[in-house]
Amino acid sequence: MKFNPVIEHLKTYEPGKPIELVVRDFGIDPKDIVKLASNENPHGCSPKAAEAVAEAATLMYRYPDDSMMHLKAKLADRFGVAEENLIVGAGSDQVIEFASHAKLYGGAKILQSEITFAMYQIYAAQCGAGVIKSPGIAHDLDAMYDLYKKEEPEIVYVCAPNNPTGDCLDRVDIENFIEKIDPDTLVVVDGAYQEYAAFKDPRKALDPATLIAKYPHVLYLGTFSKAYGLGGMRIGYGIASKEIIRSLYKLRPPFNVTTLTLVAAEAALEDRAFVERTIADCFDQMKRYEAFAEGRGLGTIESYTNFITLRLDGITDSTALADALLRRGVIVRDLKGYGLNAIRVTIGKAEENDRFFEVASEILDNGTK
Amino acid sequence: MKFNPVIEHLKTYEPGKPIELVVRDFGIDPKDIVKLASNENPHGCSPKAAEAVAEAATLMYRYPDDSMMHLKAKLADRFGVAEENLIVGAGSDQVIEFASHAKLYGGAKILQSEITFAMYQIYAAQCGAGVIKSPGIAHDLDAMYDLYKKEEPEIVYVCAPNNPTGDCLDRVDIENFIEKIDPDTLVVVDGAYQEYAAFKDPRKALDPATLIAKYPHVLYLGTFSKAYGLGGMRIGYGIASKEIIRSLYKLRPPFNVTTLTLVAAEAALEDRAFVERTIADCFDQMKRYEAFAEGRGLGTIESYTNFITLRLDGITDSTALADALLRRGVIVRDLKGYGLNAIRVTIGKAEENDRFFEVASEILDNGTK
Repeated sequence: MKFNPVIEHLKTYEPGKPIELVVRDFGIDPKDIVKLASNENPHGCSPKAAEAVAEAATLMYRYPDDSMMHLKAKLADRFGVAEENLIVGAGSDQVIEFASHAKLYGGAKILQSEITFAMYQIYAAQCGAGVIKSPGIAHDLDAMYDLYKKEEPEIVYVCAPNNPTGDCLDRVDIENFIEKIDPDTLVVVDGAYQEYAAFKDPRKALDPATLIAKYPHVLYLGTFSKAYGLGGMRIGYGIASKEIIRSLYKLRPPFNVTTLTLVAAEAALEDRAFVERTIADCFDQMKRYEAFAEGRGLGTIESYTNFITLRLDGITDSTALADALLRRGVIVRDLKGYGLNAIRVTIGKAEENDRFFEVASEILDNGTK
Repeated sequence: MKFNPVIEHLKTYEPGKPIELVVRDFGIDPKDIVKLASNENPHGCSPKAAEAVAEAATLMYRYPDDSMMHLKAKLADRFGVAEENLIVGAGSDQVIEFASHAKLYGGAKILQSEITFAMYQIYAAQCGAGVIKSPGIAHDLDAMYDLYKKEEPEIVYVCAPNNPTGDCLDRVDIENFIEKIDPDTLVVVDGAYQEYAAFKDPRKALDPATLIAKYPHVLYLGTFSKAYGLGGMRIGYGIASKEIIRSLYKLRPPFNVTTLTLVAAEAALEDRAFVERTIADCFDQMKRYEAFAEGRGLGTIESYTNFITLRLDGITDSTALADALLRRGVIVRDLKGYGLNAIRVTIGKAEENDRFFEVASEILDNGTK
């Protein structure tokens, strides 16, 4: 059968290996597996969200309120924007998908930093659009601006903090950059890890209401997958001018988040104490990774997220290390595919991190075979 | 901001009014609202699915197993196909979306019956494709074949049973039709309500394994939203040749169903007794609607689904009736937008149907004002 030629060369996203497959492929007992690969909140989600969902489980037969009335009111209140400035997606991923289809077409272009969230270019490719990348491990805004002038992309992506490296641009630098971008170019500011960055350093904190008021061509993305601990429930949001939101809405399939997802997100949004407590714990535990890296001579990138990138140049090969860890039940993300000899490790709970240090030390002492 | 010109004229799907909005807009107590608008299973979902989800609620922080290993094994077993013949979507809607993007492009065409599931043409429009419709209330396969020869569409849709009318083609007629369609044209056979049709009349029952073995250009769609009572959890599936599935997979976003959705679907699939019991009840209750229609001189369409279409020509206006019902807390679907002076009513539980008959009788006796 002939298909749309655009899909022929599409690559799909490779998610972190799920526990189910490690159990199956390596015969490891699930209780001995430590998953530090997908930047989930290791403390789970708010107990209030879990209780609300358990109570609502018999409502699964009902389609969700497609207007998302209650959740949108809460989000609007939280961010100080109008409900017409909001769109909710099945993860912020889906909002990226809407934005791609709204702006791109065969021959269009996106601009992004070389090492950043993989879905930007996957969705661009689905639209037949090309991908322009500014070089370097961190976002180089000067290089991005030069490429912007030269290539005239339809969408520019700024990921702050950046995934999978963990570093983060300052708010003022982001704003100065956006200022120079033509109002007809969509600037997507991906704030999936903003809760972590804002906690660690106020200079990194972005305020979506201010951003969209100043820059009507900005689409800000947030998610419930990270700090709110709802990665499995697939919910994120976009905040932008009413004009942009109206266009994205045209591409939103009905019922794009589940009935229980709405219940979970509404409850999670109310439990700020849970979010703050688990973020504080994340940065406490991160110090142990920094000490481990220093003790072992590994490089790190200053992280404003719930994960840390450990650079292995001169020490070992990232793929070999990630594989050796996996065979012992410790799942991390190899960054070789991004062009970095590094692994990305989600900051786990204390005992999960203990296990990582123990197994990684063993491997680094004895080799990856 | 300039957007992709394709999205300019897009129309969005209008779902049945959710209970939340009826409460807000008409000030009606939620317990007095009867929702018979979205063809949910009025008995809810299997209690085993609800229990499994309540127990798993604390796992919401974990991304779902993106390989869907366990669910796919169960579906493969249920349908007697290989796992490579399966793709799982956020509702069968999402599989329609994948199929649209896989086959369509600006200037391509789909062929469908005039009155059928609205999402076919919504996704086609997102791809810039045109929509060819065979006239008539039921699928007219001869007319469809003539249009197929003349227009050479990339996708042909057969909805069996058909939504929103409820009627259903015979298996043998569907197969004779598919037989004549060129193997390069994708034939989507939408079996969202097949569990109901197969229960009522074996001549309507489709076997996906047989279909795809005979016709490598068929994509069969099934869903957990109707008989399985999981409409709110957004899960459906496509069954097709490995070649078609491989192409659709390229368009599947990672983590496209939630962690709890997988738990619910796996449990629901095991509880066949629940499904059979509620389908039997549906057809028992449907007799009451047929009697009501006969007593009131309303037309009906023989239904092989969990809803019934009541035709109002010579009696009243469907929009006025649907609005009058809504103001009294009874939510049904007006089919005026499909070109029918009719309402579509989901077969509810006995007491919900009591309420429908009571309120509808009042309105038909006293007028819709």
